[in-house]
Amino acid sequence: MLKHAVPEAVRSAGIAPSDVIGIATDFTACTMIPTLADGTPLCELEPYRSEPHAYVKLWKHHSAQPHADRINALAHARGETWITRYGGLISSEWEFAKALQLLEEAPEIYAATERWVEAADWIVWQLCGNYARNACTAGYKGIYQDGQYPSREFLAELNPGFAEFVSEKLDQPIAQLGQAAGTLSATAASWTGLPEGIAVAVGNVDAHVTAPAACATEPGQLVAIMGTSTCHVMNHERLADVPGMCGVVDGGIIDGAWGYEAGQSGVGDILGWYVNTQVPERCVAAAAAAGLSVHQYLSNLGFAEPVGSHGLVALDWNSGNRSPLVDHELSGLLVGQTLTTRPEEIYRALVEATAFGTRAIVEAFNDSGVPVTEFIAAGGLLKNPQLMQCYSDVLNVPISTIGSAQGPALGSAIHAAVAAGAYPSVREAAAAMGKRNQAVYRPDPAAAAVYERLYAEYRILSDEFGRRPGLMHRLRQLKREAVAG
Amino acid sequence: MLKHAVPEAVRSAGIAPSDVIGIATDFTACTMIPTLADGTPLCELEPYRSEPHAYVKLWKHHSAQPHADRINALAHARGETWITRYGGLISSEWEFAKALQLLEEAPEIYAATERWVEAADWIVWQLCGNYARNACTAGYKGIYQDGQYPSREFLAELNPGFAEFVSEKLDQPIAQLGQAAGTLSATAASWTGLPEGIAVAVGNVDAHVTAPAACATEPGQLVAIMGTSTCHVMNHERLADVPGMCGVVDGGIIDGAWGYEAGQSGVGDILGWYVNTQVPERCVAAAAAAGLSVHQYLSNLGFAEPVGSHGLVALDWNSGNRSPLVDHELSGLLVGQTLTTRPEEIYRALVEATAFGTRAIVEAFNDSGVPVTEFIAAGGLLKNPQLMQCYSDVLNVPISTIGSAQGPALGSAIHAAVAAGAYPSVREAAAAMGKRNQAVYRPDPAAAAVYERLYAEYRILSDEFGRRPGLMHRLRQLKREAVAG
Repeated sequence: MLKHAVPEAVRSAGIAPSDVIGIATDFTACTMIPTLADGTPLCELEPYRSEPHAYVKLWKHHSAQPHADRINALAHARGETWITRYGGLISSEWEFAKALQLLEEAPEIYAATERWVEAADWIVWQLCGNYARNACTAGYKGIYQDGQYPSREFLAELNPGFAEFVSEKLDQPIAQLGQAAGTLSATAASWTGLPEGIAVAVGNVDAHVTAPAACATEPGQLVAIMGTSTCHVMNHERLADVPGMCGVVDGGIIDGAWGYEAGQSGVGDILGWYVNTQVPERCVAAAAAAGLSVHQYLSNLGFAEPVGSHGLVALDWNSGNRSPLVDHELSGLLVGQTLTTRPEEIYRALVEATAFGTRAIVEAFNDSGVPVTEFIAAGGLLKNPQLMQCYSDVLNVPISTIGSAQGPALGSAIHAAVAAGAYPSVREAAAAMGKRNQAVYRPDPAAAAVYERLYAEYRILSDEFGRRPGLMHRLRQLKREAVAG
Repeated sequence: MLKHAVPEAVRSAGIAPSDVIGIATDFTACTMIPTLADGTPLCELEPYRSEPHAYVKLWKHHSAQPHADRINALAHARGETWITRYGGLISSEWEFAKALQLLEEAPEIYAATERWVEAADWIVWQLCGNYARNACTAGYKGIYQDGQYPSREFLAELNPGFAEFVSEKLDQPIAQLGQAAGTLSATAASWTGLPEGIAVAVGNVDAHVTAPAACATEPGQLVAIMGTSTCHVMNHERLADVPGMCGVVDGGIIDGAWGYEAGQSGVGDILGWYVNTQVPERCVAAAAAAGLSVHQYLSNLGFAEPVGSHGLVALDWNSGNRSPLVDHELSGLLVGQTLTTRPEEIYRALVEATAFGTRAIVEAFNDSGVPVTEFIAAGGLLKNPQLMQCYSDVLNVPISTIGSAQGPALGSAIHAAVAAGAYPSVREAAAAMGKRNQAVYRPDPAAAAVYERLYAEYRILSDEFGRRPGLMHRLRQLKREAVAG
C-alpha cells in the first residue's frame, strides 16, 4: 500500500515529493501483530506460516470473549482501579484478551512472540525503524493508566504463564500523540517516494485523529464518527467517571487532555441489517427506479411524515449496548407495530433509536461534569440529511459537521505537521488545518418537542430492558442452550 | 348466490333435490341491514340508492368506534350488568354501535329504517318469509341478556332519539338455534331448485356453527377457528366470569348451554402483514422456486431450528388484543433482534406469539372455573403443520382438528337436519354428522419445556405492556396527535 498509495496521493495532490515534510498514519484498533524483537511478524517466518494465531488479529476478532470475561471478573474481584476507566468492561477486541487467548490456545506461538504490537505502531516502526508505543492505543486498548499496566500479580492470577506478559512482550516507552517517532528511513523513502529523513509521527487511531481533523480539540467538543457503529471522542481537562466509557485516557486524543471515548456498537449496521433482511422487493425496485439507495429511499418516505405518526419506538441494541450500559448481551426491540405499519416507518424508528442512543450518551457526559458543548458529526452517515436532521431534533442541539470527506487522513496530516515542527501542537495545527462547518443542522422546535416525548419512552424501555439480568439476558441464555442442543 | 350455488351444490353432491329435507345458512356477524317492515333493504329503494348508510354494514365496518366508546362509557358509568358479559367492551362492529351511528350521521335513513336486521336473519327471512331472530347474534351482537336488551333509559341517555330503538326497530321474538324458522317458500324454492316446504333453520354465524361441525358440543371442548383472526367458541353448563370474552350467551352456540366466545383480533393477519411488508425478495423467490407459499417456506426454515434458538419473543397485538385484555389500543412488540436475525426467525416468533396469545385465553378459561378439556382447531391455518405443532407444544396439550374442509357448511347442514326433524337436537346431530380427528398434533415434551420458559417471557411482556394506560397507549396518542397535525 505504501508503495502505491503514497506516490499516487502525492501525484494527485499536484505537489512535489520534496514538498512533504512529514508523514503520519492512523489505523483501526485494536489490531495486534505478534512479532520478533525486531518487528518481524511471526506469520512471515517459515515455521509459522500455516498457524492462524501467528497472523494479525483484526479489531473485529471477538473469539477472545471468554478471556475478556475472565479479565473482567478478576478485575472486579480484586477491585482493580483501572477497570472503572473502561466502563467496567475490557473488550475481547483488546490487547490483553487477545494475548491471553494466544497463550492458552497457541502456547508455542505465544512463546515465540517477542513483541505484542499494535498495528498502529508497527507501521510507524516500518517507516522509521523505531518502535514508539503511542499513548492512544496504550491507554484505550492496552490498559495503560496512571503510568502503569495491570500488575504482575493480576496477570499471574489469570494464568501463571501470563505473569511476565507486560515485562517481556508489551512494555515499551510511551510516545505522546503529535510527537515524532523518528524520521523516514532510506528503505521507507524508497517505498513511498518521499524524502528520506522527514518526520514520522507517532501512530494513531482512525477515530481519534478525526477530532483534530474536525478542529475539535477544546473541552466538550464531541466528535461522533457515525458509520456501521458510532465512536464518540471528546477531550476534557477534567477526569470524570462517565458511565459506560470505552476508555478515558490521559493524552489519548490530544496530549495534555483527558480523552473520552464512548461508543454505540450498532448504528449503520442496524439500518443495513434492516435493509438487507426486512425490506420487500417493491421498495428495492422503487429505490432503483428513483436512482436512490434503499436507505435514502426509505429515509425520504419515512421522514416525510410528522414525528410520532408511525406510533413506533425502538431500542438500538441489536448489536448490544456499549455506552452507557456496557452490555453486549442486550438485543433489539421494536414496539408499536400495527397491521398498517410500513417498512419506511420501521426504518425511521430504527434511525430514531440510534439518535436516542446517542442522546443517552450525551446525557451521560452532561450528567457527569464533563458536558458536551458542541456536537460534531463525521463519518459515512453524514450523507443522509434526514438522519442528520433527526439527530439534531432528537438531541435538540445544532449539529456541526466535519469539513472533510477524508477525516482520518486529514487528522493524520495534522499529526504529521506537528511531528515535523510546522506547528507547535496538535491543537494549533488543528486550528489551522482542521475543517468544521458549524451548526449545519439546527433543531426544529416542534419536532424536538415530540421527540422529547418519544425519547421519554425510549428511556422507559431502556431502564426496563437494560436491567441486569433481565428478559434479554434470558433470551440469550435460551438461545445458547438451544444452539448447544 | 342462492340461484347458482345451491343447484350447483346439489348437483355436485350427486343427489336429487328431493333428497334435501332442510336448509340452513350461516353468515358473518355482525352484518346489519336497514329494512322496511317487510324486510326490503332500504338500499333497494329509489330515494336511498345513493346513500351509503342505506347499505349493508359489514362486520368489519369500524367507523362506529366513537359510538361504541360512548356505549361502553355509559354502561360502566351506570353499572349495567350486561357489560360484564362482553368483557366490559361492546364492539364498534355490533348492532347498537352501528345503529347509533346511523341515527346520528344519517337521521333520515334511521327514521326510514323499520327493522334493523342481522344479515344472518335476513337471508332466512328471504327463504321462508318469516323473520326469526336467532339467539346467537341477538346475544353476541345485540346485547340480549337474561331476556332483555339495554333499557329505554340507557338508550335515551345515549341520545334521546335512540330511546325507542329496541322497541321500534330491533325487538323480535327470539328463536333458538336448531329450530325451524319456517319452511321454504315457493319463491325461494324456485331460486334454489329445492322442494317447497322443506325446513329452513334459524340463522346462525359461521364461527359458531363450526362447533357442532367439529362435533364439539360438550362442556370444555374449545373450537378455535384460526384464520386472519381467531375465534374461540366453547360451550359450558356453568355461567362464569371469564376475562375478556367477546360474549357469553345462553344458547349462543347450542341451545341449553352457555356459549363462550373469545377472540384474537390478529393471527393470520399478522403473518400476512409480515410476509407482505417485511420479507425480502430472495425469500419470495426461493419460495416460488420451491413451489411453496412464502408462509410455508418461512415456516419450513424457521421451525427447522430448535425452540428458542432465534432468541426472540413477540407480542401478538398488532391488531390490538380482544381476549383476555380487551384493548384495541395495544400494538405489536418484538424483542431480541440481533444483526444476524433472519426473516424466518421473526416469522416463527410471530407464529409463536399467536400461540402464546391462544394459551393466555385457554388459561383464562381454566382459571375461571370453565376449563378447556379439548382443544380443537379449525380454519385456514390448519394447512400449516408447523404452526399447528407449535400450538400443541406451546399449549402443551394434544390438538384435535375438524374433519371437514367446509366446517361452517357442515355446521349449517347439522342445523338444517335438526330443523327438519332428522335429529332431536344439535348435540345428537353433531354426534352423527360432525367430524373431528382427535389428537392429531401431540406436544413434544422437550419443545414444550422450552416454550414454557418463552411463554413466561411473553407473560412478563404482556403484564408490562398490557397495563392501562401504558407505553403503547402513549404511542397511539402521539400517533393521533401527529396525524391530526
